[in-house]
Amino acid sequence: MPTPLNEVLRPAAIIEAPRLSRRLGATLTLVSETFQRTGSFKFRAAYHLASKVPQRHIITASSGNFGQALAYACRLLGKSCRVVMPKTSARVKVDAVREYGGIVEEVDIAVKSRAERVAELAAEHPDAYIASAYDDPWVIEGNASLGEEIAALHSNFEVVIAPVGGGGLTAGLVTGLRRAGSATPVIGAEPLLGNDAARSLKAGRIVANPSEPQTLADGARTVSLGRHNWEILHTGLSGIVEVPEAMIAEGVRLLFELANLKAEPTGALGVAALLTEPERFRGRSVCCVISGGNVDPEIYRKLLAVVG
Amino acid sequence: MPTPLNEVLRPAAIIEAPRLSRRLGATLTLVSETFQRTGSFKFRAAYHLASKVPQRHIITASSGNFGQALAYACRLLGKSCRVVMPKTSARVKVDAVREYGGIVEEVDIAVKSRAERVAELAAEHPDAYIASAYDDPWVIEGNASLGEEIAALHSNFEVVIAPVGGGGLTAGLVTGLRRAGSATPVIGAEPLLGNDAARSLKAGRIVANPSEPQTLADGARTVSLGRHNWEILHTGLSGIVEVPEAMIAEGVRLLFELANLKAEPTGALGVAALLTEPERFRGRSVCCVISGGNVDPEIYRKLLAVVG
Repeated sequence: MPTPLNEVLRPAAIIEAPRLSRRLGATLTLVSETFQRTGSFKFRAAYHLASKVPQRHIITASSGNFGQALAYACRLLGKSCRVVMPKTSARVKVDAVREYGGIVEEVDIAVKSRAERVAELAAEHPDAYIASAYDDPWVIEGNASLGEEIAALHSNFEVVIAPVGGGGLTAGLVTGLRRAGSATPVIGAEPLLGNDAARSLKAGRIVANPSEPQTLADGARTVSLGRHNWEILHTGLSGIVEVPEAMIAEGVRLLFELANLKAEPTGALGVAALLTEPERFRGRSVCCVISGGNVDPEIYRKLLAVVG
Repeated sequence: MPTPLNEVLRPAAIIEAPRLSRRLGATLTLVSETFQRTGSFKFRAAYHLASKVPQRHIITASSGNFGQALAYACRLLGKSCRVVMPKTSARVKVDAVREYGGIVEEVDIAVKSRAERVAELAAEHPDAYIASAYDDPWVIEGNASLGEEIAALHSNFEVVIAPVGGGGLTAGLVTGLRRAGSATPVIGAEPLLGNDAARSLKAGRIVANPSEPQTLADGARTVSLGRHNWEILHTGLSGIVEVPEAMIAEGVRLLFELANLKAEPTGALGVAALLTEPERFRGRSVCCVISGGNVDPEIYRKLLAVVG
């Protein structure tokens, strides 16, 4: 029996942020996964999945955080994995996958989609498990552990806000919070450039982006919500804030300046949502999930440079 | 009765850093005060002092972190304070003191020393308590709370390493660890540019720098160890690593890249010490105190820019 997830993961860092709260006009508690194993919440999903599937080899497509999380999880579990990554991925993320022992399969997405490359690899490795980085019941279940942690804080949050890409994190949060008896509403923070989740909620069905949105928030460059996630989110999510790119950058800066927190752009989406719709959150007690901290130094330097 | 320190402070963030450990060749646990109230360990000393002295008004000289910590502590306690700061102080630190309600007294240290300005203010405000940022029994006692926290981890660290400026932090660590029954040796990490503590240990008496050393580590720009601290450190400290400036910058970068941690240069002195004397720590279990995270974005951008 492999060691269960809750004995392997690190609890999220709980950071009160009085200066950031004052700036945003809400009482903010940051629940940060930047110090999670491999630097993002994705470890929860990756480890849980890798520990539950019987296969010894796992193949996935990931822009980075799920890839490095899966590589590390497989190492801990004595398994192996292949990670299909676009050639344009952040170098720190490619390097980290390799450092954790994963095999990186770089793909030029102008020539071949990640899904096509995964299909080729699946044919070459018929014994492997093909893991979605976000749309898999094991992924949702792994991420539910974060919802349970938040519920266990007994902090009377009025709302939990978290990034939305493929929807694995928010689906897990809703699942974990409800299981732990919490009715706290969950709101998604999605890049306006790839606002398929917001459009899906309005349409009452999954709506896709025409292609991967080129948002700063590289963890949210997904074409659509996952089907397993949609089943939970279409009734479970209490709303979505569509975040302009400039607010994502400002969110990264404010976390740096007022909370001493290094967040990646996707991780700053929640703070960016409060900047985008301040009236929606004013005076409220907000739990803001910072999903990860892995960002290239050069990108980070550029984000800090716009400081007035 | 004011609320005691241990009910007001936030416990230090305990961060395992496997990638940083691999890079440094030691098993590193980061004990980070970057999320402490006001962003550095100085809150422990400032709050404890302000809660214990009977005076309602407190005057201090501080390059920044003690100043903002004292301002916030006084606000919490319904007291007031004046903070003498050099005109060259980091703007984020000046702004933060004001935001927390402190009165900033800027001084051009080319014309008048901070000590002279403090003496003038003391004469103007005879009822005020004059607080040293590092050399005061209440300061040591406040910082001892961090030593007690580290001892309570029961982590079998072989060594604790922490920044040395005026010696208030290391004196507190030694005091707290010993009181909690831990014999773990404490090693100081001091900028080579201002290596008065290393020279003091060798000489067996307090040796001063000719002037404030212009190290990147602005929290360690002290002329000499404090006398109260010396009484503890001359037998209590197990050694000092003298850290070149380039290693301080590299320490900040490595904490960013491999541990997702935003540290100020002074806060990175411990990691920089492991870079400076790798053989001294190789294979050992090291508790590394990250003393604070308050750094101007422009300085931080420059530190990240040297990445190869």
